[in-house]
Amino acid sequence: MFFGDSRLILGTGGANSLSALEEAIRASGTELVTVALRRVDAAGPGLLPMLDRLGVRILPNTAGCYTAGDAIKTAHLARDAFETDLLKLEVIGDERTLLPDGVELLAAAEKLVTDGFTVLPYTTDDPILARRLADVGCAAVMPAGSPIGSGLGISNPHHIELIRQAVDVPVVLDAGLGTASDAALAMELGCDAVLIASAITRADDPAGMATAMRHAVLGGRLAFTSGRIPRRFHALASTSDEGLPRW
Amino acid sequence: MFFGDSRLILGTGGANSLSALEEAIRASGTELVTVALRRVDAAGPGLLPMLDRLGVRILPNTAGCYTAGDAIKTAHLARDAFETDLLKLEVIGDERTLLPDGVELLAAAEKLVTDGFTVLPYTTDDPILARRLADVGCAAVMPAGSPIGSGLGISNPHHIELIRQAVDVPVVLDAGLGTASDAALAMELGCDAVLIASAITRADDPAGMATAMRHAVLGGRLAFTSGRIPRRFHALASTSDEGLPRW
Amino acid sequence: MFFGDSRLILGTGGANSLSALEEAIRASGTELVTVALRRVDAAGPGLLPMLDRLGVRILPNTAGCYTAGDAIKTAHLARDAFETDLLKLEVIGDERTLLPDGVELLAAAEKLVTDGFTVLPYTTDDPILARRLADVGCAAVMPAGSPIGSGLGISNPHHIELIRQAVDVPVVLDAGLGTASDAALAMELGCDAVLIASAITRADDPAGMATAMRHAVLGGRLAFTSGRIPRRFHALASTSDEGLPRW
Amino acid sequence: MFFGDSRLILGTGGANSLSALEEAIRASGTELVTVALRRVDAAGPGLLPMLDRLGVRILPNTAGCYTAGDAIKTAHLARDAFETDLLKLEVIGDERTLLPDGVELLAAAEKLVTDGFTVLPYTTDDPILARRLADVGCAAVMPAGSPIGSGLGISNPHHIELIRQAVDVPVVLDAGLGTASDAALAMELGCDAVLIASAITRADDPAGMATAMRHAVLGGRLAFTSGRIPRRFHALASTSDEGLPRW
Repeated sequence: MFFGDSRLILGTGGANSLSALEEAIRASGTELVTVALRRVDAAGPGLLPMLDRLGVRILPNTAGCYTAGDAIKTAHLARDAFETDLLKLEVIGDERTLLPDGVELLAAAEKLVTDGFTVLPYTTDDPILARRLADVGCAAVMPAGSPIGSGLGISNPHHIELIRQAVDVPVVLDAGLGTASDAALAMELGCDAVLIASAITRADDPAGMATAMRHAVLGGRLAFTSGRIPRRFHALASTSDEGLPRW
Repeated sequence: MFFGDSRLILGTGGANSLSALEEAIRASGTELVTVALRRVDAAGPGLLPMLDRLGVRILPNTAGCYTAGDAIKTAHLARDAFETDLLKLEVIGDERTLLPDGVELLAAAEKLVTDGFTVLPYTTDDPILARRLADVGCAAVMPAGSPIGSGLGISNPHHIELIRQAVDVPVVLDAGLGTASDAALAMELGCDAVLIASAITRADDPAGMATAMRHAVLGGRLAFTSGRIPRRFHALASTSDEGLPRW
Repeated sequence: MFFGDSRLILGTGGANSLSALEEAIRASGTELVTVALRRVDAAGPGLLPMLDRLGVRILPNTAGCYTAGDAIKTAHLARDAFETDLLKLEVIGDERTLLPDGVELLAAAEKLVTDGFTVLPYTTDDPILARRLADVGCAAVMPAGSPIGSGLGISNPHHIELIRQAVDVPVVLDAGLGTASDAALAMELGCDAVLIASAITRADDPAGMATAMRHAVLGGRLAFTSGRIPRRFHALASTSDEGLPRW
Repeated sequence: MFFGDSRLILGTGGANSLSALEEAIRASGTELVTVALRRVDAAGPGLLPMLDRLGVRILPNTAGCYTAGDAIKTAHLARDAFETDLLKLEVIGDERTLLPDGVELLAAAEKLVTDGFTVLPYTTDDPILARRLADVGCAAVMPAGSPIGSGLGISNPHHIELIRQAVDVPVVLDAGLGTASDAALAMELGCDAVLIASAITRADDPAGMATAMRHAVLGGRLAFTSGRIPRRFHALASTSDEGLPRW
């Protein structure tokens, strides 16, 4: 799968230095890093060689696009520049929330699938839109937990669960995660992977937080597959008679 | 510190078999396992040799005691039986919630500290009671996240933070954790360790959940020490100009 | 304003009898009741005369429509049948969640505004979609708190606040409210009104719950306009010296 | 019952002026106002005559007491001063949280019951302590939703429900409420009344907030007795066939 064994995709924005970013990428264990086409020049000549040296794949994104037309153009430029069909499709609705514009997003996704891209759309937490994106051929859906960079975590876990039920493609929690428990929760809700940028790059210790997120994703995934205990209103004695070991 | 590098203490109640318990203990990386004195016979002859073989220390507990007097007697029996001053002190208030009785708990703690025990009381999430337990000489406080075996996680994170501010001794989240994100959150709130029983022993796959919890505790702790980003009402572009890499 | 002084719009679905519905409508103080065109026949001959007798206005809705085309046709039929331009526009995405399909909804809204309707769209809690609906001329936006009939309340209060900031038209919380505190919260988040159906019609005592909702909406609105105290991490003595009365 | 038909007890601390307080008391519909013995002089000569003129009963409290002994002495002084056996018993644990000290509280309560007081203890949200307070003869229990003046609402609704199950005496939510939906929620959890001070007296418009709280308490209580709909993961059509009116 495109997100690799680590199930952790990294964003590069917000890093203080190239070396801090490299340390964080190493610590995270990620195999896929998303890069905004419009920021590549700004990021300077060092970013791409560093990713190449680390053996990390690049996931180009269309950050900064506000219309389907703009995103489609940017996607084609990105494919030429990075020589990959893989695309994180972003079509933003406004500057304050940076939340996706669902109508433009769906139009762009449909066209780009036809153009041969492997489209991974950054979307809202709306289960109906997620299903429509999957229906037009997107290879995954990437719902926001909360606004980009907000650190609010997953504002509506119920909708993430509804998305998990609504689509057969992978679900990648993208945007809003602030700390390790947020990432673990994403996996416990059934997500296949998470994408994290600011929570790592802007932490006081980016490499430490990258390690934290690596553990959290592994832990959350394992908790999801290990069958957690049900929630109960009252207590259940861990050493009650009914639970007595049988040896 | 008594809880070891793993910062994960395990309870043994609820396990289906000795071998399942052994697998879970190995997977968890724990160095300290709590055992109810009143259940040792029920647990059969295999438990203590197994713990000894794994090099895991024993933390005797007074589960099943409802008064200070009963808990004090049980504590002394436990010290004789296990040859350790370490004690998880439980004085339960009722059978439905298994929540601690603070008044009895404080009385028992004060006496047992005088008697030379290293007292680790299972307490409510009340910051005032936690401070009084620390004041009488308890070596840590172990607040409940929610009722034992309920899997409800941490019902009142605010109180756990208030406890963290109220005492200088270690804080160990004990009871109620259901899944990995709960354990990560406990550490992010400033807890020094967690104690988990049912969430592991009663999971569909105890060893899988034990591994999940190990990662979650590590991840949560690292997130706590790495300085998370602040929460914001609006978005912060991860690739905004203000955040541009400076290389 | 279309929602009246009570700020409470009622739905008629789920009622056990016409007399129970009448009692609930009276108790609620509502001045506007929504009726599904497709259910009018099923509702029998008594519903419309009863509403007329109570002096309650009718808000036709397009419940049961899954495409823009279907909703547009139904809207025109409703206008003819009820002789009102007022329209609650519903375009549903799937049967399990009954959440709106944003793409179809926006297309239908744009057309119906052109056709002279006063369009009140039932929408998701997506602030970007809400703004686009306002931009094409909708007279209000009616975001879901959670799925219709779920009683889950407002799953994402943050998004309701973002919608409140994103549009200048009235915001009516529509769908998911289960109890009085949910309705009060909607108003405290800045909503101008709420629409409630199942929570009243399916309660054990519909008239009692209608009265409860009336009080809750009034209370929530007044709390919103009265300037609540800020949230604090620690306590603030209500009888501290700094707060001493000055008389 | 001591709290009257309004089910809303008011605190006087934090008011800006006597006339603002009078307005708020009138607007709230309260029949019982709590007054700190230690603040009566500070409140000036106008407070008691005003309460008398409004026909509002006084509930003396022991705010500012940190030990059982101090609270017992203060209680007796209050009984002499106000000529009432009714007592809101406060024994505070520390200045930052103003949370109760359960051990001191229970000791004081037991003695004051013996001394003939009608003891209404301000307590933690601990169900075991609540039951012990009821067992020694307290006439009600008054758990904190969150720290006094914090406006955080009810941090642990689960514990309030457990308290409701644990005792047969009235439960009055006391402390921490910030807005109308908090008060409604308290009633929906089964509380018999709420006590509010700062949320009203320190609001921008105290009389407006008092009216809001009056409606919220009525609405929450009615919602509690009217049998709310169950919570569902998916939607339930309000106009589905199964829900069709039968007339």
